[in-house]
Amino acid sequence: MKGIDHIGIAVHSLEKALPLYTGTFQLSHIKTEVVESQKVKVAFIDVNNSKIELLEPTSDDSTIKKFLDKKGEGIHHIAFKTDDIYQELENLASQGVRLIDETPRIGAGGALVAFIHPKTTFGVLYELCQKQKQK
Amino acid sequence: MKGIDHIGIAVHSLEKALPLYTGTFQLSHIKTEVVESQKVKVAFIDVNNSKIELLEPTSDDSTIKKFLDKKGEGIHHIAFKTDDIYQELENLASQGVRLIDETPRIGAGGALVAFIHPKTTFGVLYELCQKQKQK
Repeated sequence: MKGIDHIGIAVHSLEKALPLYTGTFQLSHIKTEVVESQKVKVAFIDVNNSKIELLEPTSDDSTIKKFLDKKGEGIHHIAFKTDDIYQELENLASQGVRLIDETPRIGAGGALVAFIHPKTTFGVLYELCQKQKQK
Repeated sequence: MKGIDHIGIAVHSLEKALPLYTGTFQLSHIKTEVVESQKVKVAFIDVNNSKIELLEPTSDDSTIKKFLDKKGEGIHHIAFKTDDIYQELENLASQGVRLIDETPRIGAGGALVAFIHPKTTFGVLYELCQKQKQK
């Protein structure tokens, strides 16, 4: 694990939540993009040593919509950076960690991402995140 | 806000949770200490660009015990570093952010800490954290 890539926070509306971060907290908005595979629109905020990822559902069957319905707005996950997501997933599985994604999928910014089940991580939803090399 | 000082995670037992971080995730345990004022025992984990703070309640009337009873184990708060916590709290209050602690108190490691109410931060419990200068 090479540090925290970002902390994911579920919100009803990016438009409403962003001014807290860019105005009140005086942090920089890096970019907003739609991640079709996860049915979310995400805004990345630069917090100097890491990033905050605000997640707004784009569909009623988005897992973020279900999270919001059940728990309300709040912290959703912590994403660790890794240089070799395939090796890391194999390591975790071999140590009895339950995976949500046994193979990585494409997340925001084209990164390879995989989620770990909170059942074996004391209630925390962790994500592994490997940035694709820039061409 | 000068980056994320740590992410606080509520657990029932540090003894049970620590091996996930130090063994499976291969991260370093910095230290464990009791914070009497908050009725918790905390273990800090080095995650390279930030820290994870595992929080175990030491009393039934600890706010962490109440959190665990209500929501179960999981992410509790995000702590921002600041160089001037008094100024930051004044700024936030003047912009309509609701504070839990209007004046800082002493947290883990002797840091000055203050919590912001999640009501005006879209469901996220934020902490401000100012390290005391080393003598």
